[in-house]
Amino acid sequence: MAELNTQLGVNYARGFKSAGIYCGIKKPGLLDLALIVSETEASVAGVFTTNKACAAPVRWSKQVIANGTARAIIANSGNANCLTGEQGERDAQRMAELVAKRLGCTPTQVVVASTGVIGVPLPMNAVETGIAHLFERLSDGDDRTTADAILTTDSASKRASLTVETPAGAVRIGAIAKGAGMIAPKMATMLAFITTDAQISPADLQECLTRVVEQTFNSITVDGDTSTNDMVVALANGASGVALTGDALQAFETGLYTVCEYLAKRIVKDGEGASRIFEVRVTGATDTAAARQMARTIAESLLVKTAIHGGDPNWGRIIAAAGRAGVPIDVNRARLFLQGVLVFENGRPTEYDERALIEQMQTDEVQIALELHDGDGAARFWSSDLTAEYVKINAHYRT
Amino acid sequence: MAELNTQLGVNYARGFKSAGIYCGIKKPGLLDLALIVSETEASVAGVFTTNKACAAPVRWSKQVIANGTARAIIANSGNANCLTGEQGERDAQRMAELVAKRLGCTPTQVVVASTGVIGVPLPMNAVETGIAHLFERLSDGDDRTTADAILTTDSASKRASLTVETPAGAVRIGAIAKGAGMIAPKMATMLAFITTDAQISPADLQECLTRVVEQTFNSITVDGDTSTNDMVVALANGASGVALTGDALQAFETGLYTVCEYLAKRIVKDGEGASRIFEVRVTGATDTAAARQMARTIAESLLVKTAIHGGDPNWGRIIAAAGRAGVPIDVNRARLFLQGVLVFENGRPTEYDERALIEQMQTDEVQIALELHDGDGAARFWSSDLTAEYVKINAHYRT
Repeated sequence: MAELNTQLGVNYARGFKSAGIYCGIKKPGLLDLALIVSETEASVAGVFTTNKACAAPVRWSKQVIANGTARAIIANSGNANCLTGEQGERDAQRMAELVAKRLGCTPTQVVVASTGVIGVPLPMNAVETGIAHLFERLSDGDDRTTADAILTTDSASKRASLTVETPAGAVRIGAIAKGAGMIAPKMATMLAFITTDAQISPADLQECLTRVVEQTFNSITVDGDTSTNDMVVALANGASGVALTGDALQAFETGLYTVCEYLAKRIVKDGEGASRIFEVRVTGATDTAAARQMARTIAESLLVKTAIHGGDPNWGRIIAAAGRAGVPIDVNRARLFLQGVLVFENGRPTEYDERALIEQMQTDEVQIALELHDGDGAARFWSSDLTAEYVKINAHYRT
Repeated sequence: MAELNTQLGVNYARGFKSAGIYCGIKKPGLLDLALIVSETEASVAGVFTTNKACAAPVRWSKQVIANGTARAIIANSGNANCLTGEQGERDAQRMAELVAKRLGCTPTQVVVASTGVIGVPLPMNAVETGIAHLFERLSDGDDRTTADAILTTDSASKRASLTVETPAGAVRIGAIAKGAGMIAPKMATMLAFITTDAQISPADLQECLTRVVEQTFNSITVDGDTSTNDMVVALANGASGVALTGDALQAFETGLYTVCEYLAKRIVKDGEGASRIFEVRVTGATDTAAARQMARTIAESLLVKTAIHGGDPNWGRIIAAAGRAGVPIDVNRARLFLQGVLVFENGRPTEYDERALIEQMQTDEVQIALELHDGDGAARFWSSDLTAEYVKINAHYRT
């Protein structure tokens, strides 16, 4: 597999163009509207937020994915078009219609995504003018503006692309993402848009995407909140002429995983106020679901997150979080490693060198590994530490 | 019902004595060992942490409660006797044995509780000497030292007592509690010990206690972490000569609720770094469990907790938290009130006076009320705001 390129995103795959502009939703100078277009009809797949207060564009785009094919993704930042009543539904549809008209496709072939403040109607005049401008700016070159136009409180744009050598031939994958926790006024959201020139059926694409998202974008946590607007959408237009099935499809999935893993970790690293990230690996659980539940509970524990922030090998908080995860743990069988150092076994702490371990924890990425010795279930979560900066960012925005 | 007395705790009920001393677990000068004794055999009931990594004293005391009667509660702070292996089990039992020997009862009639740092063996020599001293200090007068000896990071002792006029006659209830979130080195815990001179069967006492704890101590959250050592234990020794059944028992339960509600709210107010508390009421849910789940999700949301800290009427974060609670919500039917002001209905924000509402939120206790209009389920949670001070308290303790 070729190396991951982090300087090019959705435009890396052949047969795609994109653009990002300022249309008037955010403050002048900040990009707020992005368009990704496939030259031909593409297979489409998506994974969406499970939040029951989800936004109008989420409902619209689920319908697009159900149809199996799409031509474009139109996305705005600065306004979530969420909890905006009937008007919000009409505005999401209108965004799709405006794009579809220029492409000569049906509106239901246009994915719509929004992220930003909740409860405020979209400035549709600005969006309408903006969509016209986007078509003038479409390019298959540098896609930095596309990546930037979906950001809210992110500190940096997030792009990744890759060539995958499959038994059937080489295909390209490109992607852009945004994250940064969930805050207002920019009620930030996790968005990722993936393009590939592989030829894949909508059903296969959906299966690959669902599996990969579960282990990447759905295995990260910044503050435990699930946004109303989260969405990961993939388009496969077949421009490579390489049709993927069997082993070739599996090679593609591995490539997709690499791209998504990189972007997911970038989101955690860019978490609001985060000073370091940590990985929680749980192995030997009764099953995968139990392992995920326990890894997630540890990854979301405020006490663990603050301990990691303090560079403190506080194994007691980790075991206590594991104990309240609601899934089996026998503390007499469990073994806990921090930065590879065994700190707990046989129901009590080991005699590790605490001073040395504290030194080892003063790093960008802390490793927590918990062995349960109860079965084959394994899972991994990434999380960011909890800092005073997070509180500061989130406590005030109108006052 | 007579007024709640917050200057006397477990000694208010007749036939109980208690004491609190420094025995050598904490730093000199800090009380760390408490004893509560009933003159006669008392009915006993308890509610315990569900954490699977629970401490040795929790396992011991569950056994005591299963037997139905007890004579005493011995509790230490400064050391949780948790994740201390076989030695920990022996030490918990030894504490009960030392108390039982002096009382002439069986060890299984002595409740044991510990709170403090995890993973460190108890200094049993100090505890043994301390238990001897406790018996010299037992008093039925002021019980401030008893209340203080179970505290860890709490900023103030927590006592409450009450006379309940029941149809069968007057009975007294007294209680002490500790809380303050869950942190290390003082891996704090929620403990509450309740005494009453009412005559109640163990089964009735357990039923009352379970219901009351569900709506009080189990309806508060500081940081979402469930301690390894949480325990609420009630002793009823019948010293009033008033036997409770039927309506009289119901009057007792109301009194018990009043005492526990006060102490539960005191724990939240005393939450680590808390600057204000807030109440989340969910009504009209499909059932009680759904209402509780939604109220808890809102109460624990970091985004809601930081918004409350900032005095920000951020209704979007509340609806978004409700939406991810995993229970039904129709945002078009839901109505949300902040400080009694309707801020959201018909799927979108109302035109409330934001400036006025911000003013109203600069208070010690913020009220959030969410109506779902889906059924009869109702629940209420209390929570504290999230402050930079919380992060500071929890990030560093050895470094």
